[in-house]
Amino acid sequence: MAYRIERLDKIIESKDIDAFLFTSTISVKYLCGYFYNFEIGPSPFHFIPAALFVVPSKITSLVIADNETDQLAGLDARILMKQYASYTYDKPLDFLSQFLIRIHELIKDSGMCKSRIGIEANSLPHSLAESLLSAYPKIKFIDISHDLALLRMIKDSEELTLIGAATHLCDIGQEAVLKYGKPGMTELELFTLVRGDMDAAAGKRVPMMADMVCGVRTFEGGGNPSDKKIISGDLILSDLTPCLNGYWGDTCNTVVTGKPTHYQIEHFNLIKEVLDSGVNAVKPGIRASAVDQLMRKHLSSAGGYKHHSGHGVGLAYHEEPRIVPYNDTELVPNMVIALEPAIYQNGYGIRLEHLVVVTREGCKILSEFNHRFEKE
Amino acid sequence: MAYRIERLDKIIESKDIDAFLFTSTISVKYLCGYFYNFEIGPSPFHFIPAALFVVPSKITSLVIADNETDQLAGLDARILMKQYASYTYDKPLDFLSQFLIRIHELIKDSGMCKSRIGIEANSLPHSLAESLLSAYPKIKFIDISHDLALLRMIKDSEELTLIGAATHLCDIGQEAVLKYGKPGMTELELFTLVRGDMDAAAGKRVPMMADMVCGVRTFEGGGNPSDKKIISGDLILSDLTPCLNGYWGDTCNTVVTGKPTHYQIEHFNLIKEVLDSGVNAVKPGIRASAVDQLMRKHLSSAGGYKHHSGHGVGLAYHEEPRIVPYNDTELVPNMVIALEPAIYQNGYGIRLEHLVVVTREGCKILSEFNHRFEKE
Repeated sequence: MAYRIERLDKIIESKDIDAFLFTSTISVKYLCGYFYNFEIGPSPFHFIPAALFVVPSKITSLVIADNETDQLAGLDARILMKQYASYTYDKPLDFLSQFLIRIHELIKDSGMCKSRIGIEANSLPHSLAESLLSAYPKIKFIDISHDLALLRMIKDSEELTLIGAATHLCDIGQEAVLKYGKPGMTELELFTLVRGDMDAAAGKRVPMMADMVCGVRTFEGGGNPSDKKIISGDLILSDLTPCLNGYWGDTCNTVVTGKPTHYQIEHFNLIKEVLDSGVNAVKPGIRASAVDQLMRKHLSSAGGYKHHSGHGVGLAYHEEPRIVPYNDTELVPNMVIALEPAIYQNGYGIRLEHLVVVTREGCKILSEFNHRFEKE
Repeated sequence: MAYRIERLDKIIESKDIDAFLFTSTISVKYLCGYFYNFEIGPSPFHFIPAALFVVPSKITSLVIADNETDQLAGLDARILMKQYASYTYDKPLDFLSQFLIRIHELIKDSGMCKSRIGIEANSLPHSLAESLLSAYPKIKFIDISHDLALLRMIKDSEELTLIGAATHLCDIGQEAVLKYGKPGMTELELFTLVRGDMDAAAGKRVPMMADMVCGVRTFEGGGNPSDKKIISGDLILSDLTPCLNGYWGDTCNTVVTGKPTHYQIEHFNLIKEVLDSGVNAVKPGIRASAVDQLMRKHLSSAGGYKHHSGHGVGLAYHEEPRIVPYNDTELVPNMVIALEPAIYQNGYGIRLEHLVVVTREGCKILSEFNHRFEKE
């Protein structure tokens, strides 16, 4: 993978940073490739799954639990791996001390005992901060979380490939909704079939956020699949957001079971037009707020939607640039953006979402799925 | 639910605590009932999902993201709810400041500005700790994580009901493995069917850790289901650990597809005997290490197993009391313990696991599933 450490140069300069200690799973994945699967929550055998310590142009060291080393065969040769003892059964668990020993070694050996260290203040545990500050009281922590979020807005080619692969799972899922969705089954039964196809395509379990709701629940915009039964004439709204190897895909479709009403067809076509207008507007130089406004104004007479018009997608399922009224960020090539206009009226909701990458001329839709309201 | 705040008395006394600030999802669930579903990772709209501030016999206040209030209808009337603004689209996200404002108000209004505050040092974010210490430099943080873990070892009747319900999902899953598992399908296909039955029984998506492996992968003890095909004669090891409403269940079975060998049958029966001997040994007063030793020694001639013999289960899938060689904790009624002896030999692994609750006389198996090697 790309050696993204070099991209920290701007932050080093603007914030006068001597070294970095990354503790969020997203930053660790971004900078060295290691992905912690969050699907079963935090491990009882970890302090944190991994941390990355960087002294620019000198050291990049990954401190990682010794039961989490599976993915590390492809680790960049410039990254030094330091394991800490996590799971034990023949002696008491001691992962906190073991982790701290590794981090203290790194600070000491690199001579960073009085340095300005870039950190992520919300993901840095108090126990780690306190331990370092009491050993090295002249260290200054500088929060660089927001700088990193801005850095991650623009994707490199490997990231685009990974987001594309996750979006391919969305395509499979949306086709599965059209294929399997029918009156008589529950939202949850449909979800199980849809996720089954997506997992099968990935060859493994894939963490997934999903709105999968029918009938009046579509009016509320979404929610987890429940044991509510789909009845004939119900709409089914499926917003599928799988995380494949750390990168998210995100698309939404709304389908009808049975015969749609005249209004439903009109509304579906309206939202499709609005989505198309958003996709057509996305290009370098346009402001996120302008894309938001352009899509939102089409729907103001129809009551509009009380949520964002879109958002960045990558290592987080909702990240910068947000496509919202206040955000005057100018789009630039290689941003990845989900656009998701919607209508919520007459006791139902219709939302359609595409994931696009900004190109030099405009944008490219990452999905191959064409939004359809009915089975063909 | 039980008003568990009163159980903090011992910690207040032993550590001279004036107030508590709980920030781990487990403690918040334990003390007030709010469960954050971790299955899709941390929310981009939260600082943390919730925190609980307690001034014993005065204030218990839950600070919670305003998009996480669904579950709070049943909140104990003694618990004051303070929401903080999380998701916004018409103005920039500001959840960190919003969260901090609520916490600062609580500290100030309760007069705890110079107090000894019990915290969980590994889950307390540096940004929160720093913000409080710079406003109130006389506050002392006291880590009470381990005290809480010990407190949670002994379950109350509501917890036993919840663990029982999660274990019932395990039963459904283990029956589903026997029902669906057959040569020609992949581990993942089997897993999809098994999880489908479990989710259907719960009426919702249930976060789940699961070893679901066949053939030579059973020799390694487990792993996530993959696209490896089950072939005739393969063993299938299924360790199912679902999290229902915050509480985990945990059972393991190993089944054979096709005709078992003589050795496989012998080994299955041996592990079943060892598991039975463990279950029969569990009673108040016995040390965890004695239960471990008793099970482990049966298997020392067969190579033994290089993991724990068992562990507590509750709001974590592996918690105190661990059933391991070094742990001399005496078992007491209402501890919930998984026992999971295993054999890994001849290129396969067989592990059987029961979840039990310690009673006054001995223990009671929470599962209704009987371990079986073959379809009937």
